Amino acid sequence: MVAAVGAEQIYNFCSGPAMLPPEVMLTAQAEMLDYNGSGMSVMSLSHRSEEFLGIQADAEARLRQLLSMPDNYRVLFLQGGASSQFAAVPLNLMGSDQPAVYLDSGYWSQKAIAEARRYGRVVIAGSSAESQYCSALSSNDYQIDPGAAYLHYTPNETIDGNCFDHIPSAGCVPLVADMSSCILSEPVDVSEYGVIYAGAQKNIGPAGLVVVIVRDDLVGRARADCPRLLNYQTLAEQNSMANTPPTFAIYMAGLVFRWLQEQGGLQDVKKRNVAKAQLLYDVIDNSRLFSNQVVSSNRSLMNVPFSSGNSVLDAEFAQTAAANGLKNLQGHRSKGGLRASIYNAMPYSGVEALVNFIEKFESQHV
Amino acid sequence: MVAAVGAEQIYNFCSGPAMLPPEVMLTAQAEMLDYNGSGMSVMSLSHRSEEFLGIQADAEARLRQLLSMPDNYRVLFLQGGASSQFAAVPLNLMGSDQPAVYLDSGYWSQKAIAEARRYGRVVIAGSSAESQYCSALSSNDYQIDPGAAYLHYTPNETIDGNCFDHIPSAGCVPLVADMSSCILSEPVDVSEYGVIYAGAQKNIGPAGLVVVIVRDDLVGRARADCPRLLNYQTLAEQNSMANTPPTFAIYMAGLVFRWLQEQGGLQDVKKRNVAKAQLLYDVIDNSRLFSNQVVSSNRSLMNVPFSSGNSVLDAEFAQTAAANGLKNLQGHRSKGGLRASIYNAMPYSGVEALVNFIEKFESQHV
Repeated sequence: MVAAVGAEQIYNFCSGPAMLPPEVMLTAQAEMLDYNGSGMSVMSLSHRSEEFLGIQADAEARLRQLLSMPDNYRVLFLQGGASSQFAAVPLNLMGSDQPAVYLDSGYWSQKAIAEARRYGRVVIAGSSAESQYCSALSSNDYQIDPGAAYLHYTPNETIDGNCFDHIPSAGCVPLVADMSSCILSEPVDVSEYGVIYAGAQKNIGPAGLVVVIVRDDLVGRARADCPRLLNYQTLAEQNSMANTPPTFAIYMAGLVFRWLQEQGGLQDVKKRNVAKAQLLYDVIDNSRLFSNQVVSSNRSLMNVPFSSGNSVLDAEFAQTAAANGLKNLQGHRSKGGLRASIYNAMPYSGVEALVNFIEKFESQHV
Repeated sequence: MVAAVGAEQIYNFCSGPAMLPPEVMLTAQAEMLDYNGSGMSVMSLSHRSEEFLGIQADAEARLRQLLSMPDNYRVLFLQGGASSQFAAVPLNLMGSDQPAVYLDSGYWSQKAIAEARRYGRVVIAGSSAESQYCSALSSNDYQIDPGAAYLHYTPNETIDGNCFDHIPSAGCVPLVADMSSCILSEPVDVSEYGVIYAGAQKNIGPAGLVVVIVRDDLVGRARADCPRLLNYQTLAEQNSMANTPPTFAIYMAGLVFRWLQEQGGLQDVKKRNVAKAQLLYDVIDNSRLFSNQVVSSNRSLMNVPFSSGNSVLDAEFAQTAAANGLKNLQGHRSKGGLRASIYNAMPYSGVEALVNFIEKFESQHV
């Protein structure tokens, strides 16, 4: 939220749950006790009511439009977060004798790999661990076994702040992507993918929702031991209502999708994201105090880690920034340092406020 | 919600997502853009922030107080709904050679049984199927194998409208209960149970949250193929933050728990629920048009199915009632007929409005 506290603006740089567009929050607040004249809150609508079915269908239609999604893909609105898909993907797609191939570009890649190993043979075709994940992989770094069940990668690593500069070419092997921290930040060619999944709490809506986009031919392959609520076939056949879906989170996602359309769609959203990221990286690169270690071709548009190399100074920065309305700039607990997550809902003015603060802090400490 | 539409009150008898207390909704609306002076919405708080950790700890403390929960139980706030626990329970508790024992008292019992069968041998120790689930089981109806991994039952069947009049005696076998539609409707002796779980969208909060209460000694038994996000040990060790929890739903649950405390706690809540149910059952039992088929000792306090035996007339009733502000009285699609769900948040005045409408409708149709 961009909100005023006293005379001061708050900008929330949290990696997720992240800020949502103020317009979305105001609509949600205004409709909270009475959705569309129903006399009921969205939270109290039956998930099988005409009103809620309309909300879900509208959210799906807007997402399809934003992503120019081909008709042979299903959209699932589920609970469990992206982490639940770390299990769902192998349970749905891993054959008994086919290996699953993973690319390792950071913290979340590794989480996905660890979970897949529960269910069968995992091959890591490439890793940027040697660079301390200061790069993603380039297309020369890996080769894909054409007999693999699928190829999994993480286009944008939320914690490491790197992103792929290409879509991996997997031939006939279905490509699976955890897009939690980059979905809807720029156009994406959905037809290149077998499965795309994304936790909501960054660019989609509140925590408690994961959006799964799955190509028709990959539905119906689940193993017998796949829990019913992770089985893409059950979920697709029941239109995400194999059990009660997270109705309010789906409603919020629909409001965010509408807001993105009002912003001009993903080409325009990307332009703004590039401008915000460039402003921030430029100031960090010119800083005598802070630096970002990610190679330039793999720098994330969404998550910008930076550090002075001095944990005490970094902590002082995060604390002083927070006191000045720039919240949640501390890095992930696994990595330390600082990080600014600048998702779609972060306005340019928020990044301007951050770079002004960086420059002021630097002038006081160098 | 009790809300005014024009001059009219709305009462929502949905089985879930259900109405939430108006006081809770007003607080949530007021705090929506700025939680506690933070300048941020609860939805945008980091789940690891001091503010949110406070919200979660407060919710847990209130739940513990309401249920007089012994210290040797862990409270988990998870995604996935109660249906996710249909898989989690066997994946956590079913040994390789121990059968899991289930009691079958209706629709949701059967769902739990079907899911458990994926993971090992299931014994159905008793079933009230012969009565068309117009009864639950009495303690003479079943015997429990003392070597069972656990005994699972559904104290209140949301669709069939029956409830147990006793807690099954399982000896040393851990007792597992799906309390989705009865939790917090009356006091419960938690110490009788190994695991209690409940989807939130009836008596706890919005859809998208399941509360799991698990005894310490049952944590740490999960099978190797248990997905990480269903493993009670991982979830307990990480204080429900093995991934981003459904933060806003947890906040809403905390507001509901506070409201229940303000209502005087569960003894007082039960008194009001008994009064509401009695009013409704009395009118149905005296009706020349409608009847409820559940045996009196097993009638649910929360879910009251009734029917005229004529599907056209039932549909007319539901439709006319809705037009008069009494919403969602149609029965579950699997069963037809009518059903009034009268959870904690349904005021006595709502049940009065319903019985008045029943009597008026009857006078026009008999």
